Amino acid sequence: MFESAKLGHKIDKDDYREREAKLREALLAAQFKLKQQGDFPVVILLSGVPTGGRGEMASQLNEWMDPRHIESHAFGLPNDEEAEKPPLWRYWRALPPKGKTAIFFDGWYLGPMWDALRSGDKVALQREIERITRFERMLASEGVLLMKFWLHLPKADLKKRIKKLESDPLTEWRVGESDRWFLKNYDEIIANLQPMLQGTNLAFAPWRVVEAGDANYRSISVGQQLLEALNARFDKQFQPYGEAAPLLPSVDGVRLLDRLELTHALDKKDYEKRLAEVQGRLNQLTRKRGFKKMGVAAVFEGMDAAGKGGAIRRITAALDVRQYGIVPIAAPTEEERAQPYLWRFWRHVPSHGQVRIFDRSWYGRVLVERVEGFASQFDWMRAYSEINDFEAQLDAANTVVVKFWLAIDPDEQLRRFKEREAIEWKRFKITDEDWRNRDKWDDYIIAASDMIDRTSSAHAPWHLIGANNKYHARVTILEKLCDAIEARLKRKE
Amino acid sequence: MFESAKLGHKIDKDDYREREAKLREALLAAQFKLKQQGDFPVVILLSGVPTGGRGEMASQLNEWMDPRHIESHAFGLPNDEEAEKPPLWRYWRALPPKGKTAIFFDGWYLGPMWDALRSGDKVALQREIERITRFERMLASEGVLLMKFWLHLPKADLKKRIKKLESDPLTEWRVGESDRWFLKNYDEIIANLQPMLQGTNLAFAPWRVVEAGDANYRSISVGQQLLEALNARFDKQFQPYGEAAPLLPSVDGVRLLDRLELTHALDKKDYEKRLAEVQGRLNQLTRKRGFKKMGVAAVFEGMDAAGKGGAIRRITAALDVRQYGIVPIAAPTEEERAQPYLWRFWRHVPSHGQVRIFDRSWYGRVLVERVEGFASQFDWMRAYSEINDFEAQLDAANTVVVKFWLAIDPDEQLRRFKEREAIEWKRFKITDEDWRNRDKWDDYIIAASDMIDRTSSAHAPWHLIGANNKYHARVTILEKLCDAIEARLKRKE
Repeated sequence: MFESAKLGHKIDKDDYREREAKLREALLAAQFKLKQQGDFPVVILLSGVPTGGRGEMASQLNEWMDPRHIESHAFGLPNDEEAEKPPLWRYWRALPPKGKTAIFFDGWYLGPMWDALRSGDKVALQREIERITRFERMLASEGVLLMKFWLHLPKADLKKRIKKLESDPLTEWRVGESDRWFLKNYDEIIANLQPMLQGTNLAFAPWRVVEAGDANYRSISVGQQLLEALNARFDKQFQPYGEAAPLLPSVDGVRLLDRLELTHALDKKDYEKRLAEVQGRLNQLTRKRGFKKMGVAAVFEGMDAAGKGGAIRRITAALDVRQYGIVPIAAPTEEERAQPYLWRFWRHVPSHGQVRIFDRSWYGRVLVERVEGFASQFDWMRAYSEINDFEAQLDAANTVVVKFWLAIDPDEQLRRFKEREAIEWKRFKITDEDWRNRDKWDDYIIAASDMIDRTSSAHAPWHLIGANNKYHARVTILEKLCDAIEARLKRKE
Repeated sequence: MFESAKLGHKIDKDDYREREAKLREALLAAQFKLKQQGDFPVVILLSGVPTGGRGEMASQLNEWMDPRHIESHAFGLPNDEEAEKPPLWRYWRALPPKGKTAIFFDGWYLGPMWDALRSGDKVALQREIERITRFERMLASEGVLLMKFWLHLPKADLKKRIKKLESDPLTEWRVGESDRWFLKNYDEIIANLQPMLQGTNLAFAPWRVVEAGDANYRSISVGQQLLEALNARFDKQFQPYGEAAPLLPSVDGVRLLDRLELTHALDKKDYEKRLAEVQGRLNQLTRKRGFKKMGVAAVFEGMDAAGKGGAIRRITAALDVRQYGIVPIAAPTEEERAQPYLWRFWRHVPSHGQVRIFDRSWYGRVLVERVEGFASQFDWMRAYSEINDFEAQLDAANTVVVKFWLAIDPDEQLRRFKEREAIEWKRFKITDEDWRNRDKWDDYIIAASDMIDRTSSAHAPWHLIGANNKYHARVTILEKLCDAIEARLKRKE
């Protein structure tokens, strides 16, 4: 990766002046177009060898373009809110909306990735490469223009720069311990960086290694590449990076959800007894000391009128109101529409000690958006792995993900719809849309079956709840939820 | 305040059942209407004597209504992000949007207010009462339905409850040190609470003291009051709480801004020298250790084409990109429109060590919104004191507020408009709106003069910059900014 970045590239002063004037005007115009059209965001990731000029380059871009539409983000150690969330949370929080640009200093290559590099642990390094690759693929598929620059210095140049900074009392403070470590272990680090950069060198987001010894060369290189990438994007309609293969339901017509037992016996009296017991159990679990160090994301999906709301109320009734939040998923807001689709769920990742209940969820992508054609096939098909990734990150941050699919049969649904229409204060629960969805029953069964197959994982399995009997469904849901919390509490002890 | 809350109020079981059934249905319907109309948010503040049942009451409300549209917020000690911001920042962050409800446990009556109560410092207490009053008046004027409940227990009841909890190993942990402190100093605390509750007992947001010894009485009281308040609001078009007095410009026609010297001499050569000096000074100031413990909010307002953008670029060129952010103020987003107007600026309150530059600002309320009639006279007139309050809070959190009004004369503006139209890459900077605003020149001068009079304060004065000469304006702005930072750094040393 670094061979072409130790050739002593240079641009002389006169040449620079001429090229800079043109470049600046073109970049400003491109940025204006970006803002006017507002159909994709730009993320510029600046990384590289210490003293390679990340800060100067970012300043240069701000000077060339309109700095009001560029945000720069540097990340240090996580603060106490960030430390409870998955490591990517803070980058999600800083993503620019469509039409805007953000500069990330090192970004998600910090933290676990550098730890792996420093420790020389090849397995960890490979795992980090894969994580990053998945994240960047998601960004690219969402239309983010991702420009990754590595500002490089050959060893001799780095040594010269560090010496120069150290020799002047006014600049001495700029040389940190990690810079000296980098210089001392230069060859080894570069050897380790090679697979990292190659491993994350993706067709849709390649690394752009730029020799940074000469500031003129560095600036024109970065600026010119950014300009070309912007113009290339303007020239054509955005195409997601891939083609979806066709997906067929099983050819014998038997779908997973057809085999689910929907009706269970449980009478009101037994229900009330069991409910009180399991609510007590849930309450006790959330009072344990260990619960302060874990989070819960409970996800409810299912057919309309399957009883999601009722089940949720039986959960919240057992909890201290200070411990839970319900996130009802409706149409995304304007700010949410300007971001990758998972962004609006990242906003609601629970802190430790909290139960966050999602009344419908990120699975909308592979259910309603698939069935209604709101998302392209490529978009909903890539969602399976993106969602698995998201949940794995939650799990790793000690937030347990508990997912429920509530299933009823069409007759039971019809009965409930009619009941809702008849009772005054339930009438607002039934809309024309519910009737329309009902016509697509089979499509939803197919979509849900695929979803369950593709997103059930060891750490976040789907619980399939036959819900013709509401009592049985509620008690079962509470029990599964308790089991999941209990298992997690035990793991930590 | 507490006299009527020690009468041993009670509701018996049968009566409760009957009243609860009706209340529940009515509350659910009201909540649904609230959500559908979506024209105001509801904030329920639950406070009171320890063991008075805040948590139970919140659970009850969640059980009666649809918990998906209610968020509950309990606040402990500020986390490290909150600690750098004004104390109200975390409550702003948690405000519900229109159509939704939030329950705050004690809310902004925690923290400084309790400190004042515990210390018995009467001056501090009075200051807190005034702060809270201003905040609540702003919320009410913005249409927030604010319901403040004090769940009360006479001393004997409190004693009984604490004893009962303490006697059972299963509930003993519920009694904290502060509960025992409350019981021990009951009479004195209640005596101090009396002026606090009376001082914050506002016509538009009265305290509702509810005796909490009998859970039935407590629940029906709170529920009924909430229902009445909701219905009263539905019944009429919302009227902001007040009438604006007429405001006249000075009767001799001389306005503050007419007297400002607009033209200053500074040639390009001297400019470049002075600019380099003052940029160097700014850079050094932001590298000082003390700068990590302060924030800067720099506000730019002025006539169109007065040179705000150019001045901002001269500031950012002197800063490390990791230290600044620019907030260009455009039309509010959908999420922002569902909140009080200052909410979208609270979102951008700088952290310590950061310079946040506002290219136009919260002053839009008293400039463009006043002139164009987007805000009612009552709304923009109340904004003066709300803005002063906001800036005083920033100042108290060690964020220095530096405000610039850039003034040019109409001829200079015309010259710049024409220049912008002539130069290809400047053309996007001039729009039809700029020409329309120009026709209202005098209205803007009057509005700006009023604004400067009413919002210049010792800690956040307006700097009036005659900007016919761009060079002079830029250098002056940088100098004022440096002076303000330097003065703040000295104060901390």
